[in-house]
Amino acid sequence: MPRVPEVYYAGEIPPHGGGTLVYNVIDNIDKARQYWEIKTRIEIKPTLDPKGVPVRNVYREVMSIAYGFFTPLEGFMTQNEVESVLKERRLLSGWLFPYPIVFDVTEEEWKASGAKVGDEVLLTLKGKPLAVIKVEEFYKLPEDKKAFADAVFGTPERNKEVVRVPFDEKMPGWLIYRCLKSHAIAGRVWVVNPPKFREPYVRFWIPPAQSRAYIKAKGWRFVVAHQTRNVPHVGHEMLMRRALFVAGIGERPADAVLVNAIIGAKRRGDYVDEAILEGHEALSRGGGYYFHADRHIVTMTLWDMRYGNPLESILHGIIRQNMGCTHHMFGRDHAAVGDYYDPYATQYLWTRGLPSYGINEPPHLTDKGLKIRPVHMGELAFCPKCGEWTYLGIPLDVPEVKQLPLCGHKPERISGSFLRGLIIEGIKPPSVIMRPEVHDVIVKWWKVYGYPYVTDKYLKLKEEQLEVELP
Amino acid sequence: MPRVPEVYYAGEIPPHGGGTLVYNVIDNIDKARQYWEIKTRIEIKPTLDPKGVPVRNVYREVMSIAYGFFTPLEGFMTQNEVESVLKERRLLSGWLFPYPIVFDVTEEEWKASGAKVGDEVLLTLKGKPLAVIKVEEFYKLPEDKKAFADAVFGTPERNKEVVRVPFDEKMPGWLIYRCLKSHAIAGRVWVVNPPKFREPYVRFWIPPAQSRAYIKAKGWRFVVAHQTRNVPHVGHEMLMRRALFVAGIGERPADAVLVNAIIGAKRRGDYVDEAILEGHEALSRGGGYYFHADRHIVTMTLWDMRYGNPLESILHGIIRQNMGCTHHMFGRDHAAVGDYYDPYATQYLWTRGLPSYGINEPPHLTDKGLKIRPVHMGELAFCPKCGEWTYLGIPLDVPEVKQLPLCGHKPERISGSFLRGLIIEGIKPPSVIMRPEVHDVIVKWWKVYGYPYVTDKYLKLKEEQLEVELP
Repeated sequence: MPRVPEVYYAGEIPPHGGGTLVYNVIDNIDKARQYWEIKTRIEIKPTLDPKGVPVRNVYREVMSIAYGFFTPLEGFMTQNEVESVLKERRLLSGWLFPYPIVFDVTEEEWKASGAKVGDEVLLTLKGKPLAVIKVEEFYKLPEDKKAFADAVFGTPERNKEVVRVPFDEKMPGWLIYRCLKSHAIAGRVWVVNPPKFREPYVRFWIPPAQSRAYIKAKGWRFVVAHQTRNVPHVGHEMLMRRALFVAGIGERPADAVLVNAIIGAKRRGDYVDEAILEGHEALSRGGGYYFHADRHIVTMTLWDMRYGNPLESILHGIIRQNMGCTHHMFGRDHAAVGDYYDPYATQYLWTRGLPSYGINEPPHLTDKGLKIRPVHMGELAFCPKCGEWTYLGIPLDVPEVKQLPLCGHKPERISGSFLRGLIIEGIKPPSVIMRPEVHDVIVKWWKVYGYPYVTDKYLKLKEEQLEVELP
Repeated sequence: MPRVPEVYYAGEIPPHGGGTLVYNVIDNIDKARQYWEIKTRIEIKPTLDPKGVPVRNVYREVMSIAYGFFTPLEGFMTQNEVESVLKERRLLSGWLFPYPIVFDVTEEEWKASGAKVGDEVLLTLKGKPLAVIKVEEFYKLPEDKKAFADAVFGTPERNKEVVRVPFDEKMPGWLIYRCLKSHAIAGRVWVVNPPKFREPYVRFWIPPAQSRAYIKAKGWRFVVAHQTRNVPHVGHEMLMRRALFVAGIGERPADAVLVNAIIGAKRRGDYVDEAILEGHEALSRGGGYYFHADRHIVTMTLWDMRYGNPLESILHGIIRQNMGCTHHMFGRDHAAVGDYYDPYATQYLWTRGLPSYGINEPPHLTDKGLKIRPVHMGELAFCPKCGEWTYLGIPLDVPEVKQLPLCGHKPERISGSFLRGLIIEGIKPPSVIMRPEVHDVIVKWWKVYGYPYVTDKYLKLKEEQLEVELP
């Protein structure tokens, strides 16, 4: 008999950590205003790579913590907590958590602020109050940042199950940890000046408490989360359609797909964030009805993606469980870049665990683990003989997840980069590959930014504007 | 939290009744031969309707009992057991069972045989030994066969949850009970002369013990059963493809579809049995590879279908659980004919139970119930805008099973009778509606029988030949 975790209904699944959702946001403007007067201040600045390119902005972590996406995390980690996470991917409370979440500063910034342990320090963004951190500890991060980044993501020697190639500067997540400043401030954070999201982000900003309320109001019993950082082509859409059938308790299809886009630092050549969000939205609204509008919702999380494949899948599971989802779709190369990890590293984690990272059981079957359940999906490809997108299965040699292809034909896969090549040539892809409503969204933002993909200009603008304005 | 039954792997799921599989077949020819000499004999004759048309042949029940399809049933029911089944759809042992299974004879047949209680009586078919029944009881069936048939299937007055229209002679199952002879013999049966199946049946005759061994050899962990009495059009194929995604434990698609065709009494206009079996087979073998051959198996059960919709679904669940399947797909109008039952009567049963039949809980959630799990599937239709078969959902107003349509378009359904109309006009349906390999099978048997569907001539031949020859 297989090991099966408890089953919850969507919206009622407990937040991660066994307690209540974190909501460290001071909405009461009079109460909030008092904090704006705090004189001990630190300005939030982007993390820069050696060439000075911004690769992360910690304001996104402040927001995700305070609005409960990272529940039970209430603030930035202490040195002990970082060590615990690196040792066994657990918080000091014992709950699973994949990454050190640190608020890094230079020693000069710390000294200039005049802050000391026990203080409430105002964190400003673009010179305006954003949040307060109650300083629990000020400590030095490891001197050797390369070793620190390796400790976060793994090495082929130490993590033979899933790491294939040593990480380097081309891996954006590794680069973030590599580029952290020398010290870190630990402590709880509160947003004391709730930012206003700019268009079009504002309608996709549906933090956990709201997302749970929405799910309950819709009467959805099973909801599958879909991680995205892409404008959806039909292959993605079909993956979601099929995942909707899998996510349930094996007796019925799920009720809805919750698309959650990771919005943060971008790389040249990516789709722009606005097109990603509106492209997914176009599948159920604004003309396209490929998903019934009552079965589909598009949301976002602020996070500079670390591309940690299996590790990232734990964070993704935590975020979407906190948002009220019962299931999380994981496919090939989940949250991956390059060939660092095995393409099915995430599937391996969710069926066998990753003992080399101190994770001895699958995240949803371990004590103080997640309650959200994985949906293991192979790739799909359009099969002209079947006349539909057919399932290519999962070749991972683990009985819990190994899957044969659905049909006996040999359909050709269409790569995302091939598709991007078509689009930039001005060719409207056939609707069997990309929905016209989605292409329209790409063209819309192409006109706004002068190019369909992320450029240096877009990167600069993005870092200047971020996704929010502060009142 | 939803109620969730225990999860088993395919091939290892316990047979119905909590014990071992019934296998009342004497394979040892020397041992079997002794029984052939029994002088107390009864010849198996078809059940005839008032016009003399055969509507059932009890040899099929003898076979299904002896080979374990109806496990834990080992023989024909006593009067007490029939009453227990009619009262609460349970055997005297307490295990769920939907129908009285009776070996009916006339008083004259009984007297002519010279049999008495305690005897072993040889049952002959076409004059040759087939089986032995150890007589436990000889009793009179209810005089009023119409009332008896109503007691089996229900009435709109007594079974308001699901019966919409009173049953009558046009309902084949009701007609069978209506036409039973006056008396019944109860007792265990053994096949003492294992019949040889004729072509093409022989390769589809895979009784429970063999089916379980096959599933284990393939390494299938989750197998969804598909009930059929039809040559598959693409809509059926897509239902199976989608059901394959649902059947699992909500974490991965199932491994395989086990198609189980009910082979027995036919009605004019039905597809011929040979085409049904080979038509399904053509989806994975013989040229069509719409299912990977290692994900698909076509099998048969001998049974004169009773068309009892929710009641039939219990029997179907029992048969396929005994065959080793973990899941059973139930769609709209499961095993239904006409408008007697609510189209979603089966879904109602498997989510709420049917208290008016004495079934107070869903079959898989009740004590001494089934271990196989239902997969609730709505209909599918080809949606030209989506470019694929889209899910139409389930409109039943029961939260456990209610499903919205997948897309927001309004695709047209294609009816099976429309398709049959096309075929008889000599039109090869487009491959988006019927696979050419399946159409070829229809044409093959059209040539053999001079017509693509069941005719009086076919009915006569079928009753003469049955599916087997006796050595």
